[in-house]
Amino acid sequence: MIERYRTREMTALWGEENKFSVWLEVELAVCRAWMEKGVIPGEAYDDIVSKASFDIDRINEIEARVNHDVVAFVSSVAEKVGENGRYVHLGLTSSDVLDTASSALLKRSFGVVREKTARLARAVRKKAEEFKYVPCAGRTHGIHGEPYSFGLKMLNWLYQLQRDEERLELAEEQVSYGKISGSVGGYAHCDPSIEKRVCELMGLKPALVSTQILQRDRHANALTAIALLGGALERFATEIRHLQRTEVMEAMEPFRAGQKGSSSMPHKRNPILCERICGMSRALRGYALTAMENMALWHERDISHSSAERIIWPDAFHLITYMLDRMINIVDNMVVNKEKMRENLDITKGLVYSQRILLDLVGRFGLSREEAYAIVQENSMKCWEGKATFRELLAGDERIASRLSAEELDEFFDPSYYLRYVDDIFARFNR
Amino acid sequence: MIERYRTREMTALWGEENKFSVWLEVELAVCRAWMEKGVIPGEAYDDIVSKASFDIDRINEIEARVNHDVVAFVSSVAEKVGENGRYVHLGLTSSDVLDTASSALLKRSFGVVREKTARLARAVRKKAEEFKYVPCAGRTHGIHGEPYSFGLKMLNWLYQLQRDEERLELAEEQVSYGKISGSVGGYAHCDPSIEKRVCELMGLKPALVSTQILQRDRHANALTAIALLGGALERFATEIRHLQRTEVMEAMEPFRAGQKGSSSMPHKRNPILCERICGMSRALRGYALTAMENMALWHERDISHSSAERIIWPDAFHLITYMLDRMINIVDNMVVNKEKMRENLDITKGLVYSQRILLDLVGRFGLSREEAYAIVQENSMKCWEGKATFRELLAGDERIASRLSAEELDEFFDPSYYLRYVDDIFARFNR
Amino acid sequence: MIERYRTREMTALWGEENKFSVWLEVELAVCRAWMEKGVIPGEAYDDIVSKASFDIDRINEIEARVNHDVVAFVSSVAEKVGENGRYVHLGLTSSDVLDTASSALLKRSFGVVREKTARLARAVRKKAEEFKYVPCAGRTHGIHGEPYSFGLKMLNWLYQLQRDEERLELAEEQVSYGKISGSVGGYAHCDPSIEKRVCELMGLKPALVSTQILQRDRHANALTAIALLGGALERFATEIRHLQRTEVMEAMEPFRAGQKGSSSMPHKRNPILCERICGMSRALRGYALTAMENMALWHERDISHSSAERIIWPDAFHLITYMLDRMINIVDNMVVNKEKMRENLDITKGLVYSQRILLDLVGRFGLSREEAYAIVQENSMKCWEGKATFRELLAGDERIASRLSAEELDEFFDPSYYLRYVDDIFARFNR
Amino acid sequence: MIERYRTREMTALWGEENKFSVWLEVELAVCRAWMEKGVIPGEAYDDIVSKASFDIDRINEIEARVNHDVVAFVSSVAEKVGENGRYVHLGLTSSDVLDTASSALLKRSFGVVREKTARLARAVRKKAEEFKYVPCAGRTHGIHGEPYSFGLKMLNWLYQLQRDEERLELAEEQVSYGKISGSVGGYAHCDPSIEKRVCELMGLKPALVSTQILQRDRHANALTAIALLGGALERFATEIRHLQRTEVMEAMEPFRAGQKGSSSMPHKRNPILCERICGMSRALRGYALTAMENMALWHERDISHSSAERIIWPDAFHLITYMLDRMINIVDNMVVNKEKMRENLDITKGLVYSQRILLDLVGRFGLSREEAYAIVQENSMKCWEGKATFRELLAGDERIASRLSAEELDEFFDPSYYLRYVDDIFARFNR
Repeated sequence: MIERYRTREMTALWGEENKFSVWLEVELAVCRAWMEKGVIPGEAYDDIVSKASFDIDRINEIEARVNHDVVAFVSSVAEKVGENGRYVHLGLTSSDVLDTASSALLKRSFGVVREKTARLARAVRKKAEEFKYVPCAGRTHGIHGEPYSFGLKMLNWLYQLQRDEERLELAEEQVSYGKISGSVGGYAHCDPSIEKRVCELMGLKPALVSTQILQRDRHANALTAIALLGGALERFATEIRHLQRTEVMEAMEPFRAGQKGSSSMPHKRNPILCERICGMSRALRGYALTAMENMALWHERDISHSSAERIIWPDAFHLITYMLDRMINIVDNMVVNKEKMRENLDITKGLVYSQRILLDLVGRFGLSREEAYAIVQENSMKCWEGKATFRELLAGDERIASRLSAEELDEFFDPSYYLRYVDDIFARFNR
Repeated sequence: MIERYRTREMTALWGEENKFSVWLEVELAVCRAWMEKGVIPGEAYDDIVSKASFDIDRINEIEARVNHDVVAFVSSVAEKVGENGRYVHLGLTSSDVLDTASSALLKRSFGVVREKTARLARAVRKKAEEFKYVPCAGRTHGIHGEPYSFGLKMLNWLYQLQRDEERLELAEEQVSYGKISGSVGGYAHCDPSIEKRVCELMGLKPALVSTQILQRDRHANALTAIALLGGALERFATEIRHLQRTEVMEAMEPFRAGQKGSSSMPHKRNPILCERICGMSRALRGYALTAMENMALWHERDISHSSAERIIWPDAFHLITYMLDRMINIVDNMVVNKEKMRENLDITKGLVYSQRILLDLVGRFGLSREEAYAIVQENSMKCWEGKATFRELLAGDERIASRLSAEELDEFFDPSYYLRYVDDIFARFNR
Repeated sequence: MIERYRTREMTALWGEENKFSVWLEVELAVCRAWMEKGVIPGEAYDDIVSKASFDIDRINEIEARVNHDVVAFVSSVAEKVGENGRYVHLGLTSSDVLDTASSALLKRSFGVVREKTARLARAVRKKAEEFKYVPCAGRTHGIHGEPYSFGLKMLNWLYQLQRDEERLELAEEQVSYGKISGSVGGYAHCDPSIEKRVCELMGLKPALVSTQILQRDRHANALTAIALLGGALERFATEIRHLQRTEVMEAMEPFRAGQKGSSSMPHKRNPILCERICGMSRALRGYALTAMENMALWHERDISHSSAERIIWPDAFHLITYMLDRMINIVDNMVVNKEKMRENLDITKGLVYSQRILLDLVGRFGLSREEAYAIVQENSMKCWEGKATFRELLAGDERIASRLSAEELDEFFDPSYYLRYVDDIFARFNR
Repeated sequence: MIERYRTREMTALWGEENKFSVWLEVELAVCRAWMEKGVIPGEAYDDIVSKASFDIDRINEIEARVNHDVVAFVSSVAEKVGENGRYVHLGLTSSDVLDTASSALLKRSFGVVREKTARLARAVRKKAEEFKYVPCAGRTHGIHGEPYSFGLKMLNWLYQLQRDEERLELAEEQVSYGKISGSVGGYAHCDPSIEKRVCELMGLKPALVSTQILQRDRHANALTAIALLGGALERFATEIRHLQRTEVMEAMEPFRAGQKGSSSMPHKRNPILCERICGMSRALRGYALTAMENMALWHERDISHSSAERIIWPDAFHLITYMLDRMINIVDNMVVNKEKMRENLDITKGLVYSQRILLDLVGRFGLSREEAYAIVQENSMKCWEGKATFRELLAGDERIASRLSAEELDEFFDPSYYLRYVDDIFARFNR
């Protein structure tokens, strides 16, 4: 990932230093398993543990010669260990180390992503509560429909994040498997008990069956889960971008003090964080696609997936982490303009309330649907042509005025009616 | 989907007739809920139930005028019902019907897909058992590695299908939700109890919160789960395509009696079913992508997702069902040539056994790794240059002959050694 | 493609009837080439031409047996022809017919698409001219920037369509190739002169070299060109969707008389055509992706591409044709509200003109940038806080009033200044 | 791009240092244009040119504060220049610099890619010539069809690369445009003559019309062109991977001396470079998809494309360059085993020649198709069952022996017959 979008957490996990550290974790877990089985003598094991380390420059030097990164790594470690270095990598094939280490990295990465997703969910829930009773226009097709609650928008986000959490959980579960089954997966030179113990030590489960590698549907699912989470953030970001438009101005992403672009044009507060998140979501979809293409490898493995994975795995985790961080900040510090919401609700001069009046004429006064419709339609058209507000027009229409008092009419133009189930809906999330 | 690839089950579900039937199911469930609540009189409800039906020609006629399919449908139903037709669609917005009906269709479609996936898993397991002890070359990068079990290949497929089953389960769960929450999701004209009851009647759960629609991450996840399953089938199909190559000829997809293309060229049995599956998997990835792009709709909904969904939902379910049907047949009737497997294992004249001998020289006879390596390497190169089989060369090398008897040497060239954990691996699937 | 989105032109081209007709065109062109070479006797050729036809039911019947559509087709034709039927398909492999016929279909499809694209370009150009001098807000990030010309928006669309035309031209060129080179592409049983003549008769060019098939980069490029054109239409549609928002209401897609959804809620005119186009564009990207995956076939061909192509080729051409038809209608009949554009330009109370005043203070009056900035910023902030319009505030600021007369100030708030190069820009398109 | 896959050329172009250099090129070109127009005094211009430079640390420092990279860059440059720094960026909006600079970078990147593609084409052509007359099995569906020329395989690659060259040419042309048209594209503060001159100085053409930015179909087409080229390399790489299989062994990618993985298992030469190319091609498709999604920006621009482009543009160019470099090496040094090709041609024991004999019996000896077919089929089946070679079986069949002499029969089993048009095909490429 380019420096600009790297995250601290993912750099700590996917940086070269840590990659080799996790490889070493696996190699040492293997040594320990052999030691416990009596194959590596106890002292040799202790010696290995105390000396084992690696030197990135040295690894690069060897790799330049042997053209194989795991071989280079093992050589470097063995050099550090000295004589007992011959026990390092015993019975293993490179992919045993690589895939088990990758699973550990992916699992830990999911840990970070899930923690941040949970944090975002909490932030969203807080805002949902805060704006529970704030009416705003409900919009379909970008057109005002009926009054809505701004808090419900947020609650809907929360609900989507909960589904993401389910998907992330499964995705994490499916990559939390290691394999130490040798060069084609038959444990030719390393019995299954080693695999079991190593996975245990690494916090992983042993794959019930594997080839030289773990199968790539696990990883494809990981990347589609991330792309779906990215899509959630994109949806939230798109909402804010819409609300921040000059013509709408109901909500805004936070604007950093000192951030350029504004003082002489104070209206020019651009939702650049939200836009950035949208663009990143497109990149995540691209990675998900690549990961899906990586599934149909040849026989017991080919290595075509590897080049792509070296790129898209860290890139996907950096981006989603970056996006989550930004979105948490956006939600926490979003600027919400309730007055503007109320103002915008009146743009149609009351037409957003027409449906309720129509239903009332039918339901309470027993007008036929045709009759009621005619009354509402006539006044709606006048309102739309700018003759007066819908409320005024209805009040001036004898067919309405004879039935509804001014107080009753007022009630029909009260947005809080549309929020009457808000508490019930929220209650569903408190079980 | 084009006729050629349509499946009976999905035609039954996604055909126009059934689409309207499920819409009607929803409308009637709504009527029932209102009736139970006392809003629709019992007799009116009975009348509706007895008369409600639709006429596709009439729907099309109305739609041509009103340009809205649900409105046209409701009008057609109301006409059939007569006076009580005014109760039909009471308090609903079109998407209440559409999205709840779609969820029912998707859930039922997943039912079919999961049933077939389970059937494929059983077929695969049976073959795995059958070929458990059949040695074949384990291949990485398309190059022979070490002996492997043909049954393990199949067992690995089974394991992947089990992960698909987990993903399908979650995907089905996440689309098994209905919504009857009105035009922007706030239950403006229809209280939540109706939604609850309707979902119950439809075999769905009510969405905890919705906008005019159910959020599209649910559906995107459905299509990625299908694309991942497609990727599994593509992997299996790719394996068979490789094994069916003229130079390999270890396994073949079934060839229909009478199928053209063969009698004067009997070797020309082409893995066309497997190739077809591979192509279809590419199409499924395309659909998954489109579904992911459908997530970030505007505000309480826009309708941009709809055109794409009308196409990709049935297309994806037709294809995956078609692919599963074919793959079940392929696995059930796959032609396996064990002799050829054995023959191919010898293509390298024994070099695939070299690793074990190397390890034995070190492990049992205490040679240094360098020394052992030198012996093996020297003979390997001679073998590779075609001088003799690896077995013969070793037997002729004093450094080996002095240590290993002919019987012992034979044992090193026994593929069954590489299958010694097969039972253990299989046992993991019998818990 | 589902019936709803099928187009007349593409049904005529891609329907089963025409598919077989074009196959027959190829077969007859081959017969003619052999006849001209003296291999098929003249009378036999005349006999073939007069009798050759096909019967779809019969083809399906044979295919059900032989499992090969071209073989079934050729048999059906041969039956119709009778004795001279043995000359039909002479020296050919199925793909010679299939791929040459597909190229003809693709070329003709591109003809339709290019004609409609040209028609759309004309419609767009007309609107561009019409609204050349209509000022509207120029928006970046959804936020008002500076005044702009509505006609320039359209001109920008025209320019994009011109690039699409270039891409379509190349895409068409690259699929306008036939091949009659036999089963692996070496002309084993059919010399190159036949290919040359057949391609000529079909309006195609002969591929300089082919395998059993034409290489699929040709077709992948065709589908990416279509997806890019779809992306153009999506951009235009997205613009209109934004402009049609309740808060913006500057332009609207045409609304069919009688179309449901409006009379009691006249503001609820939803941009459903534009939304439909956006969804379809997502489907086109999916198809492009699938087409790109179809490129890396095995050796002289495998048939994995075929299943996908049977679906995505007609689907892509139906959709893009449908989208073009709709977009031509939308552009032709778009409702444009110039007054609202003018009104919206004033939403920021004149702040969109601030940049020009700033530059003038520096440029004409020699204020330092800091000084000028301070003046503008101070008044901008007051304006933003709603104290008065920017014009009023400036007029009341001695630092401005001492320098600029009321007339001069007025000029600064004249949007036509921002349109002063419009004629120059338009002139570039008239060369 | 991760370090492992970065290329020298693309690092030189897309590295931070050069990015800022090209921005500076644009800024200086703008200054020059203003100077030539008399707006910037000659001495001021000379002063700017002599002092203008940038300091990355300082840029980062400023950006940390202002949160805008172009603003930070311009400030840094202005600081270096001193008093005349106020002329820098005169009349510009950030995107004028960004997009014009990006076009220059993209054009230069295409220059590199096209040069390498041409080099690969030359390498491929050389191999095509070298192996022109080398017979090998032509394979469809992975199954032997008829004899083919290995050189023709290569020639087919050349032909595909020529189509890539056409696509790259158009892609480069469409990104070779600059824009200096101000904040919404209307030249509010900077007249069109500046744009014209700046583009000229930058080796670009001025966009006929633009918004704040250049429209993104240009860039989407660039990335699809690259993905298609990647798909070509993937096809070639897949071919080699197939040919390198243990069972085929007809060709191999070069193996670096000292490369690990081979000496004790000399058969284990894995086509890792080709596999790597395949994986990278998948990543390129992902980037193309993201680029296509970047097209439908809002109004006169939003900035959602930017985050994705910062990642995928350099990544795509690094990868394709890396892939081209590797493929040139692979083609140049590919190990070709003609004997093995000949040997493999005989795997079917002569069945690959059956078609010709069948046609001869009909064509020359006037047997009915049924009669000829029966003879060939009968012997084919015996051959397939392993009774003898097809040649031997035919010789022993009286119906053949009575018509064809041994010499004639031999001729039928001569692969060179299938290569008789090779010269003609090659000649088409020498025009």
